[in-house]
Amino acid sequence: MSDNGDLARYRSSIDNLDAALIHLLAERFKLTQEVGAYKAAHNMPAADPAREKEQIARLRKLATEAHLDPDFAEKLLNFIISEVIRHHTAMRG
Amino acid sequence: MSDNGDLARYRSSIDNLDAALIHLLAERFKLTQEVGAYKAAHNMPAADPAREKEQIARLRKLATEAHLDPDFAEKLLNFIISEVIRHHTAMRG
Repeated sequence: MSDNGDLARYRSSIDNLDAALIHLLAERFKLTQEVGAYKAAHNMPAADPAREKEQIARLRKLATEAHLDPDFAEKLLNFIISEVIRHHTAMRG
Repeated sequence: MSDNGDLARYRSSIDNLDAALIHLLAERFKLTQEVGAYKAAHNMPAADPAREKEQIARLRKLATEAHLDPDFAEKLLNFIISEVIRHHTAMRG
């Protein structure tokens, strides 16, 4: 029963972190919507490979310092960016 | 130039949120590693569909409240969980 208590405690902390992640992502999408509106107004392309390259290099470095697998961090950022680009493209009809 | 200042300001905030996301994910993986060790020690399967179903329902609700697309939140959680399960499976050789 004390072992099961460990599992329940880990899961409770995971749930708290997940709630924090959701709220940070909600704020992140508000910002990328602003970026999307800006790009659409200025006829800039939805994707920006140079910016993405910088973001990936920076996040890989931060991940390594935080002992998170940098490949996972990169895959996750690519996943988020592809969703953002999908939104930006949709904004132009 | 002031418009470009807007873009730079959005991106600076996105970069701050991304750094926070990376650090939360690093903590999340520490916890799922503990869960993985616990499951391996107790011969429990790496995946737990009932737990995942609960997590997804909760995060979809939180996402909706935070004005984040719940489908995106679910896809992202599935992406993270599949990485965690890959790690758990690897821990058993």
